[in-house]
Amino acid sequence: MPVATLTISSKNYSSWSLRGWLMMKLSGLPFEEVAVDPDDATAREEILLLSPSILVPCLTYDGFRIWDTLAIGEFLNEIAPEAKLMPANRLSRARCRSICGELHSGFNSLRSALPMNLKAHFPHFKVWSKAQGDIARVTQIWRECLETSGGPWLFGDISIADAMYAPVATRFRTYGVELDEVSQAYCDRIFAWPAMQEWIEAAKLEKDEIEELEVEF
Amino acid sequence: MPVATLTISSKNYSSWSLRGWLMMKLSGLPFEEVAVDPDDATAREEILLLSPSILVPCLTYDGFRIWDTLAIGEFLNEIAPEAKLMPANRLSRARCRSICGELHSGFNSLRSALPMNLKAHFPHFKVWSKAQGDIARVTQIWRECLETSGGPWLFGDISIADAMYAPVATRFRTYGVELDEVSQAYCDRIFAWPAMQEWIEAAKLEKDEIEELEVEF
Repeated sequence: MPVATLTISSKNYSSWSLRGWLMMKLSGLPFEEVAVDPDDATAREEILLLSPSILVPCLTYDGFRIWDTLAIGEFLNEIAPEAKLMPANRLSRARCRSICGELHSGFNSLRSALPMNLKAHFPHFKVWSKAQGDIARVTQIWRECLETSGGPWLFGDISIADAMYAPVATRFRTYGVELDEVSQAYCDRIFAWPAMQEWIEAAKLEKDEIEELEVEF
Repeated sequence: MPVATLTISSKNYSSWSLRGWLMMKLSGLPFEEVAVDPDDATAREEILLLSPSILVPCLTYDGFRIWDTLAIGEFLNEIAPEAKLMPANRLSRARCRSICGELHSGFNSLRSALPMNLKAHFPHFKVWSKAQGDIARVTQIWRECLETSGGPWLFGDISIADAMYAPVATRFRTYGVELDEVSQAYCDRIFAWPAMQEWIEAAKLEKDEIEELEVEF
């Protein structure tokens, strides 16, 4: 059995780490996780050895490094096809990749205004108007996917798209964003996902020094 | 034969349009192109009909829309496997997706400091230090890929990775960025690519009103 190691950073703050970790869980493959602190100078050199782009997550599989979250998802889908990380239908798969790609390259206002912070709760947080536009687009994507697939996940069965959008659901909860009924039900489903619960419990136990980290890329 | 239409914006300024268009050319599939102006209010509504995220490029294939560049690349690789848009070897494919993903989500300093502008030439342009970091990383990726594959393209044969990085080569030329020998030779190869020459010739003929456009996402 090849050795798989996922390099991640803070469980409380790093939304990309969470995405990669959820994909690993979906794949069903055994893996070890290594947590690094990108702000620590010594750790920085260590990360460079583990992730050429200094980005997390990075999957090291039998010594081979894959350092982009979507690339990790595609690789896992290839080596563990039985886990069905992608929709089986070609057009659904293309749509799945479109919404994952849109998240991967965009939503910068949402990212900067509502950073992931699993320990925190700011129920009366004032959301900046540009971030409102991002929230409207995210929930539009969710509603369209759920309506097309019939749910309960974005493409019917759980897929990498749910792993990609899961951190967004935590932001909505942390900052008290009011959602339409369909989107709220989808967020509740994400929070009930056992892998999410496991990650969130670990984030709550993360020691406080790490709270100074800026790990959102 | 299904009808394929690629929605793009300015050929002079839109690096993402260029990426999607090069991928279409690599696929060998016949396609029509539709050019839109994202700053025009009437056009904005028209784009929404063509691209749900208001992003270009968007591929409409037999009425089905794929609106993310990497998703377009993956889709084309699936429907035109004979064109070999992705490396055949699984690990090379994973590396190809890693470098495409890194470009897709990052290099923001390079993007904002050195926007694509095919008509222009600024030989004594002062490059901001953060963009220098991005330039160093891009050329590191190029050198590593070319050394590993043996060239002449990033993964030996031409692939979506070359389509993804092609606009970066034009930025280096437009802003007179000095490169190491290997990276410069790779840029020259990109400029000698017939599809690139066709695009650049069309960009030069683009009318001037469009120069006010901000189409870099």
